[in-house]
Amino acid sequence: MSRVFSANLRCRLPFLLFLFQVALLLVFILFVTYDEHTNAAAQSSDVVPAANQLYAIFSLFQDIQLMLLVGLGLLLAFMKGYGFSAVAYNFLLTNFSTQWSLIVQGFIYHCHNGKIHLGLYNILTAEFAAVSVLISAGAILGRTSPIQLLLMSLCEIPLYVACDWVTVSYFQAVDVGGTITLHIFACYFGLGASIALYRPGLELGHPKETPSYISDLLSLVGTMFLWAFWPGFVSVLAQPGDAQHRAVIHTWIALSASALTSFATSSLLEKKGKLNLAHLQNATLAGGVAIGAVADMAITPSGAFILGIISSLACILGLKYMTPFLATKVHIQDQCGIHNLHGLPGLIGTMGGIAAILLVPDKAYGHQLYQVFPPRAPPPGNITMEATSIGEKLGRNASQQALYQVVGLGVSFLMSLLGGYLTGLVLKLPFLAQPPDQLCFDDALYFQIQEPIETFNCDQASGDFHLLLKPHI
Amino acid sequence: MSRVFSANLRCRLPFLLFLFQVALLLVFILFVTYDEHTNAAAQSSDVVPAANQLYAIFSLFQDIQLMLLVGLGLLLAFMKGYGFSAVAYNFLLTNFSTQWSLIVQGFIYHCHNGKIHLGLYNILTAEFAAVSVLISAGAILGRTSPIQLLLMSLCEIPLYVACDWVTVSYFQAVDVGGTITLHIFACYFGLGASIALYRPGLELGHPKETPSYISDLLSLVGTMFLWAFWPGFVSVLAQPGDAQHRAVIHTWIALSASALTSFATSSLLEKKGKLNLAHLQNATLAGGVAIGAVADMAITPSGAFILGIISSLACILGLKYMTPFLATKVHIQDQCGIHNLHGLPGLIGTMGGIAAILLVPDKAYGHQLYQVFPPRAPPPGNITMEATSIGEKLGRNASQQALYQVVGLGVSFLMSLLGGYLTGLVLKLPFLAQPPDQLCFDDALYFQIQEPIETFNCDQASGDFHLLLKPHI
Amino acid sequence: MSRVFSANLRCRLPFLLFLFQVALLLVFILFVTYDEHTNAAAQSSDVVPAANQLYAIFSLFQDIQLMLLVGLGLLLAFMKGYGFSAVAYNFLLTNFSTQWSLIVQGFIYHCHNGKIHLGLYNILTAEFAAVSVLISAGAILGRTSPIQLLLMSLCEIPLYVACDWVTVSYFQAVDVGGTITLHIFACYFGLGASIALYRPGLELGHPKETPSYISDLLSLVGTMFLWAFWPGFVSVLAQPGDAQHRAVIHTWIALSASALTSFATSSLLEKKGKLNLAHLQNATLAGGVAIGAVADMAITPSGAFILGIISSLACILGLKYMTPFLATKVHIQDQCGIHNLHGLPGLIGTMGGIAAILLVPDKAYGHQLYQVFPPRAPPPGNITMEATSIGEKLGRNASQQALYQVVGLGVSFLMSLLGGYLTGLVLKLPFLAQPPDQLCFDDALYFQIQEPIETFNCDQASGDFHLLLKPHI
Repeated sequence: MSRVFSANLRCRLPFLLFLFQVALLLVFILFVTYDEHTNAAAQSSDVVPAANQLYAIFSLFQDIQLMLLVGLGLLLAFMKGYGFSAVAYNFLLTNFSTQWSLIVQGFIYHCHNGKIHLGLYNILTAEFAAVSVLISAGAILGRTSPIQLLLMSLCEIPLYVACDWVTVSYFQAVDVGGTITLHIFACYFGLGASIALYRPGLELGHPKETPSYISDLLSLVGTMFLWAFWPGFVSVLAQPGDAQHRAVIHTWIALSASALTSFATSSLLEKKGKLNLAHLQNATLAGGVAIGAVADMAITPSGAFILGIISSLACILGLKYMTPFLATKVHIQDQCGIHNLHGLPGLIGTMGGIAAILLVPDKAYGHQLYQVFPPRAPPPGNITMEATSIGEKLGRNASQQALYQVVGLGVSFLMSLLGGYLTGLVLKLPFLAQPPDQLCFDDALYFQIQEPIETFNCDQASGDFHLLLKPHI
Repeated sequence: MSRVFSANLRCRLPFLLFLFQVALLLVFILFVTYDEHTNAAAQSSDVVPAANQLYAIFSLFQDIQLMLLVGLGLLLAFMKGYGFSAVAYNFLLTNFSTQWSLIVQGFIYHCHNGKIHLGLYNILTAEFAAVSVLISAGAILGRTSPIQLLLMSLCEIPLYVACDWVTVSYFQAVDVGGTITLHIFACYFGLGASIALYRPGLELGHPKETPSYISDLLSLVGTMFLWAFWPGFVSVLAQPGDAQHRAVIHTWIALSASALTSFATSSLLEKKGKLNLAHLQNATLAGGVAIGAVADMAITPSGAFILGIISSLACILGLKYMTPFLATKVHIQDQCGIHNLHGLPGLIGTMGGIAAILLVPDKAYGHQLYQVFPPRAPPPGNITMEATSIGEKLGRNASQQALYQVVGLGVSFLMSLLGGYLTGLVLKLPFLAQPPDQLCFDDALYFQIQEPIETFNCDQASGDFHLLLKPHI
Repeated sequence: MSRVFSANLRCRLPFLLFLFQVALLLVFILFVTYDEHTNAAAQSSDVVPAANQLYAIFSLFQDIQLMLLVGLGLLLAFMKGYGFSAVAYNFLLTNFSTQWSLIVQGFIYHCHNGKIHLGLYNILTAEFAAVSVLISAGAILGRTSPIQLLLMSLCEIPLYVACDWVTVSYFQAVDVGGTITLHIFACYFGLGASIALYRPGLELGHPKETPSYISDLLSLVGTMFLWAFWPGFVSVLAQPGDAQHRAVIHTWIALSASALTSFATSSLLEKKGKLNLAHLQNATLAGGVAIGAVADMAITPSGAFILGIISSLACILGLKYMTPFLATKVHIQDQCGIHNLHGLPGLIGTMGGIAAILLVPDKAYGHQLYQVFPPRAPPPGNITMEATSIGEKLGRNASQQALYQVVGLGVSFLMSLLGGYLTGLVLKLPFLAQPPDQLCFDDALYFQIQEPIETFNCDQASGDFHLLLKPHI
């Protein structure tokens, strides 16, 4: 990997993006139309405007946009000279992946009479798909060109949609907050790609791989955005009413338990009891990842509490011991430690979901049992009063449902790891502007850096304006 | 312009602001009362609290406040030593202009029985008026004192309200997202003022006019705020229901197309294919400006897509070629490039609106045609089943409506350019604390800069605390 | 205070936090269950999901989380080398205090059949309690270890809940936005603690106690977050409908008047009329503190305007003259100037509330009088048509209610000052890792600072990557 690639984006990035836009525009022209909530002609004269689906999701949609673009963008901007890249690529990938997913999900889930029917709900679920790409990118951030990241998105989105379909629609695993289908999938896809993209030259670290004071602070502020809006992110697709309400409070409790546990554990493990910002930036969110698999179940508030504690413990231990081990012994480089924030808490959450399905008695759900577990509803041939119309009615008992959770986990794990590895091999193709080792983690490679010598602060230092202006006037 | 003005704010800024506040307070005492939604005494005993107008706009109102104060504030803070000014003046102008507009709009639109009736809706529309001032200020940012900016607001707000009235109420042009009345008006008002305030001494640039690494990064984060909340900004005043829903998804699609096109075009045009942050900070929002004129029309998702692509292309080309040309050849200095983000996309959006009015068949709106185009409703003498009560019923056909869009554009363009130029002449009065050329783009002129020598980062560098504290202990 | 304490957090912080988490988990397991809005089993088969209490508060809850974690975090991060601590301790205290308050408030207000019934409403009110700790911490920020701050929270939360109960439930003072129970309580609690923690060694200031350019800018951005979301914060617990709507517009008007007055006053008082960022960061919010006591009353818009002007004047005068006086003459060190932002505006707001109760005629409230003033409702023995079911019906007249406002103020003032002082004495115990004078205001004491010598900006300066990498390759 010591040979120098051409890392010039010129022509390649514009070519890829313009081609994608033209192709997508053609698909939009030929196949995309309004859904029943956005089509004016479909409104009867007595329609109630306030009943439009828009109002059930719009406010949370805006919050989630901010969470992804600002929160995740800043969180990823922890390296001292890679802030432009972190925020800009996160933004680029969000848009590219969401557009791509609008089409892929559109043809599978929203296609009627040969047309994709579009409303805000489509954009919301497409952004969830995009999150999988954003997470995966964390494993290889700084070692890849934007062209490689976009190509990864091209490969990952269809696989995400396929895996989600197999897990949730075919095997009917339940996963309201995307622990299995989003976090575990994205984590192992990213690690798979990282295996293929292993760089021995970076095994001993890189001088630019560390944070500066400001970049570390901004990254912590990014965590605050993610933490604050996470309850909305987990619950936005839950059933309205008590199920969504449970999802919100469970998520808050798990996040809050993670936050305190992270401070305690970080101080316990570090020299002189000093807090490690990387722990706080990541592990305080671990409970939010784990809770996704059980957010709307009746796990009791203490169940959420326990999940939050365990997952943040696992995340910090992973950061401290597992990531270095994986990097040096197993040759899996995980730049942002996604295995600690998405993989381990995802596994813990999935286990928690199985436990909840087996241990929480059915009567804890009252009339809502089949709302939370659609596949447990009696099949049509055996209709009872409580039968609902959501999802397929398969008449599963709790043990059967638990089994299908395991199946879902296995499917997600295997599809993502294999798919990620194959994608990583594709990303090694020579014309993708991959940065050479020396220029990794460096904004200057793909961004124009204006006025590199003078700095924001130091300039303030000079009180002598006439001196400064001399060469100018 | 080489002579040195007195740029001391003392007495002048307090005098102007206190005078304004006392005058405004008198108007509030004499003329402002609650509207039907905030007046407790007006509630019948069986009123439904949830039906209060508050709930239709409050959540978006909060988002828009954040978008303006944090998003626009950070976006404007791109210069290395002008961050305090950018954020603080943006905040000052937002408040000054909104208060002033509450009164001006209040007397025109919300005055009954000699009293201005006040609710959150008034504050929301007054903030839209304030946005026009914030945009215009972008043309002259860094070259003007806060006193000049406030004076500009004093002149611009009444003209904005008048122009909005002529365009939308008198000529009944439709413009749900303010492309014509807000963006085009604000852009040409700002350019008009900039013409009058032309400074030959700054023609070759200024050493402080460039970003630092951190200021550029924060400015990009500001763009993320604006981008994330833009769908709410465009749609908040649309008709509830499918029209508002269309406005949301059209805006998202246009913004997203702009984002990808901006990355592609920036890389295509810059040396070695490197991305230019100024392009990303501006052109990714261009689609949001253009879409305003057509957001609730049935332009189909692909129409929004095309608008997003074209407007971001125009914005980047403008940034790269037109702004330098205007500055050096035509002597129009446009500090933040508002002509690229608001003028060109505004014109494109207006053209798109005319095309949509002429090309989209009436049946695409079903029963909603007169909701989207009130002036096309049959006049009262010719009542039909679909007649609505919104706006004036003028029985226009599509071509007539298209014609009035052109009239609205012309009115907005001419009123703003002329009004801006005259305002600019007023701003040249000698006692307005205008900064001399050398002290432009510099926070130190109007802000106390504490501890200028030591800096945030460098201080962290010194691990020797005893040394640091020696002079103290 | 010149002797050097051991400021090592190791064992102590983890011990305290783990002990707290285990104890809390036990309480959760034994005593916490779902409330009627989150309990699936409690839903009848015909429940309307949209009527769930979640939807009345969720969107504002998310905004308030962002306001506290990002807004307040950044506002407190104004010191050049104390940004990690400001954001991280603010986050830690928010979680610790909210969890603790969930239990304390839970046993008092939400306990039925021996179980605490939990929904999002509990978390929201618990976060309000947490805000009192965050405010109080502002008085002693930088001079205390995280262990001391957590111990303060342990003491303050029960006292806050007790004081709130005495003021609002027992004496039935009205205080919809928490001016008396939250801001005044928190301010004098913090000052009480600060008296006990007085450090003569810091009387002449500390070299690290000043802002840098970036930290000052980020702190101003924090103010923008607080300012933008403050109307939601004040109104979230108001009665739905016109009362909540009034609370929103009053808060906006008071904040906006404060903003303009702050710019005017700062320029008037400072050398050469230059603006002081510390004034803008604080006094622009003062109106939001004062308005809390009267937000839902019919004070007319001009009343809110006047409150905003007066409270920001008081805040700036306090910052400029009172804080230095208190620190040097009275030996009350107030790090963030909480007396100026919470104490003085709180007193002004309380006075405004008393004036409003006495001067606003009952007919201004129509049918809503007893919604805004529950204790003024006729007692059950004297039932009339307008009698409401909210709060205790005590048949008070306006003068009596005004008297109880004074009582509430006195209770809050005395309980907090005394409680704070006693808490401060506890915080002086030697094993709490209190930082020595020299290491105050310094992140490096409790945080691992990675790569202290290189900085974000300066690193960008070096364009020579090979040189940088030499020691590595």
